[in-house]
Amino acid sequence: MNISINKDRFKKTFDHFSSIGETENGGLDRVALSDANVEARDELVRRLQDIRCTVSIDRVGNIFGERSGTSSSADPVLIGSHLDTVPYGGRYDGQLGVLTALETLQSIDDAGIETTRPVTLVNWTGEEGSRFDRGLIGSTACTGYVDVETALGSQDSNGVTLREVLSRTGYDGSYSLDAEAIDSYVELHIEQGRVLERADTAVGISEGVWGSNGIEIIVKGRADHAGTTPMYDRDDPMTAAARAIHNIANVPSRIRHEIVTTVGEVDVHPGASNVIPKRVRFTVDMRSPKREALETGEDEIRNELDSACAREGVEYELRSGHTTEFVPFSPRATNAIERGAKRTETSFKYMMNGAGHDAKPMQHVTDAGLMFVPSADGISHNESEFTEWEHVIAGAQVFADAVVQLATSET
Amino acid sequence: MNISINKDRFKKTFDHFSSIGETENGGLDRVALSDANVEARDELVRRLQDIRCTVSIDRVGNIFGERSGTSSSADPVLIGSHLDTVPYGGRYDGQLGVLTALETLQSIDDAGIETTRPVTLVNWTGEEGSRFDRGLIGSTACTGYVDVETALGSQDSNGVTLREVLSRTGYDGSYSLDAEAIDSYVELHIEQGRVLERADTAVGISEGVWGSNGIEIIVKGRADHAGTTPMYDRDDPMTAAARAIHNIANVPSRIRHEIVTTVGEVDVHPGASNVIPKRVRFTVDMRSPKREALETGEDEIRNELDSACAREGVEYELRSGHTTEFVPFSPRATNAIERGAKRTETSFKYMMNGAGHDAKPMQHVTDAGLMFVPSADGISHNESEFTEWEHVIAGAQVFADAVVQLATSET
Repeated sequence: MNISINKDRFKKTFDHFSSIGETENGGLDRVALSDANVEARDELVRRLQDIRCTVSIDRVGNIFGERSGTSSSADPVLIGSHLDTVPYGGRYDGQLGVLTALETLQSIDDAGIETTRPVTLVNWTGEEGSRFDRGLIGSTACTGYVDVETALGSQDSNGVTLREVLSRTGYDGSYSLDAEAIDSYVELHIEQGRVLERADTAVGISEGVWGSNGIEIIVKGRADHAGTTPMYDRDDPMTAAARAIHNIANVPSRIRHEIVTTVGEVDVHPGASNVIPKRVRFTVDMRSPKREALETGEDEIRNELDSACAREGVEYELRSGHTTEFVPFSPRATNAIERGAKRTETSFKYMMNGAGHDAKPMQHVTDAGLMFVPSADGISHNESEFTEWEHVIAGAQVFADAVVQLATSET
Repeated sequence: MNISINKDRFKKTFDHFSSIGETENGGLDRVALSDANVEARDELVRRLQDIRCTVSIDRVGNIFGERSGTSSSADPVLIGSHLDTVPYGGRYDGQLGVLTALETLQSIDDAGIETTRPVTLVNWTGEEGSRFDRGLIGSTACTGYVDVETALGSQDSNGVTLREVLSRTGYDGSYSLDAEAIDSYVELHIEQGRVLERADTAVGISEGVWGSNGIEIIVKGRADHAGTTPMYDRDDPMTAAARAIHNIANVPSRIRHEIVTTVGEVDVHPGASNVIPKRVRFTVDMRSPKREALETGEDEIRNELDSACAREGVEYELRSGHTTEFVPFSPRATNAIERGAKRTETSFKYMMNGAGHDAKPMQHVTDAGLMFVPSADGISHNESEFTEWEHVIAGAQVFADAVVQLATSET
């Protein structure tokens, strides 16, 4: 059962959707349930209806478009991603996954393939946490990770709830997908990193999403006048924090597993050039496939803080925050992607990744697989996000092949 | 000609003024030309009139209260400080200097001393830069450092100009003090540091105000996703900035002069915990009595930045900002303070300081002297600012003695 995507149609579809919410610099400004996002949703619904898919909207506004299979009792293969973007984002993040799924449904029709299972396209609501006070709204609500009422109560910065916006835009459906009855889930996404580009490889197959530990550190010293306090008489939290931040960047090199640490936020209080700070707060984002590595990492960070703070005579407080476990993707879905790559003679590599996408919550309820195409220079969440069209085509071809395999396998 | 201050009266005066704009926690909230500041000004004017001083207000609202001398042609000795505070500041910063000057005038009367020169109390407008967009307004306008029109155009955060506020409060005078015809200037201020307390010394005599160099540094890297970018593939400006900030704190120990460096502001862009920063901006405040030390300091900071940025593969930009020269106080005024301390058997030490106060601009036009009394634990710009009353008395006694010396010396 060979499937071949239609490159010209796919390009036209992609260009058309890229004109909805297009920015001056060729990006997309289409935050969740904005006018432009609703326009893109409407267009998706029309195109799903054009190919005789059954369209359903659930309570959090997820759009499902089901193409029937031959077995009436078979669970569906779910495929898709998200049409929402960050403000002034790019054309590829999310949209490429939805449109690859749409092209896959159309190509299945073209090839006259009868799948055993239904294949259902999904557009998840609010993957980006840009508008509402949480991200991954659609997939976490669908899988029961987040209570539907909680999700509907999410507010944007104007205090408008998701419930209100869904009602206003007509995306307040009543459909309820049984998450336990999903056969499998496959998502194509841009990498948002440079691993594939550096390796000159067309497709990345995710082995899983790294676990993470978000740490907040507050170093506390004594605020003093920068001009009247001799160096020897200072309890300067900035010097201690700087030493610790620098050394924390070396922690990964001392741990015998893959791990990354990032200090992305630093707040200095009171924050005046002529005042020795009273308090410096910073965050450490740690990610690793190994729970032990995250634990060792936190120990190492404490050691660095102990030493840096002791030298300066200051104190610190460490708050270990949101922790997530490593989530490995399903071998069944992952193998289907690998077979797809081999059959289409597409270069691929297995990789792990720190960003979860909607595939991560899906893995908790079904066999999920996540595949990547390269991001030029790793740029993402940016209008200049770019993926070579040949990479898009290669990825879509692998994706379509994997979907057909999953949808026609024994039930 | 011995002069002795009246401790009981001084305490009553101090307590009375401390009730004007008093905060719940025993501090003062009396920013420039606020209702409370105006009330304190009015009270000062009344008390100056009570002791038959000639009160004059100049164009920027400085209050002068002149007690005549015996020589009609002699230039005045100017004494005073400021009645404005930072928001929720303490009782001692500024106010103590004005009230010590008032007590000195009263004590000269009590002792029946006829000074050759006039002794003129001054309350400077807006020493603190808390309300208007500049500090030291009164003294810099009086000495011509800042143009009077520029000073009057200073705005507060509501866009209200100093000119408007002076007119509304009646402190828009027309007096013009000839800055070149000031014989000398003496100011008593709290130390706002811990040097005197640590040395168990009652009075500090400032040798001068350190020079300073305000530097701004921007380290520029590449923003990337914290979860998808391996450590080896990062251009992280935070790690480089942290290394430099830590090492900059060690620069003073390598310079063969007194110098202090302070990093008080750090801004990280975009400043999200899951994003490797694109840019880190920080400031370095350097102060030293030696211009060479400031120059060597800047060179050393560049060396640290070169090395830290090269290691991380990032770039930096250094902007050398506002530079001030060391300002030594006048030996004539300083010696008068020293003689006062010796005659009253008060412990004293010479010190240099990084904060200029109104005495610094005065030194540019006359013989200025600045003396300090201890600040408990160096705390200042804070409601819990405190100076032991015995230190206040000892300081006031030294101050009064120095003033009488200057006012009765040969003209």
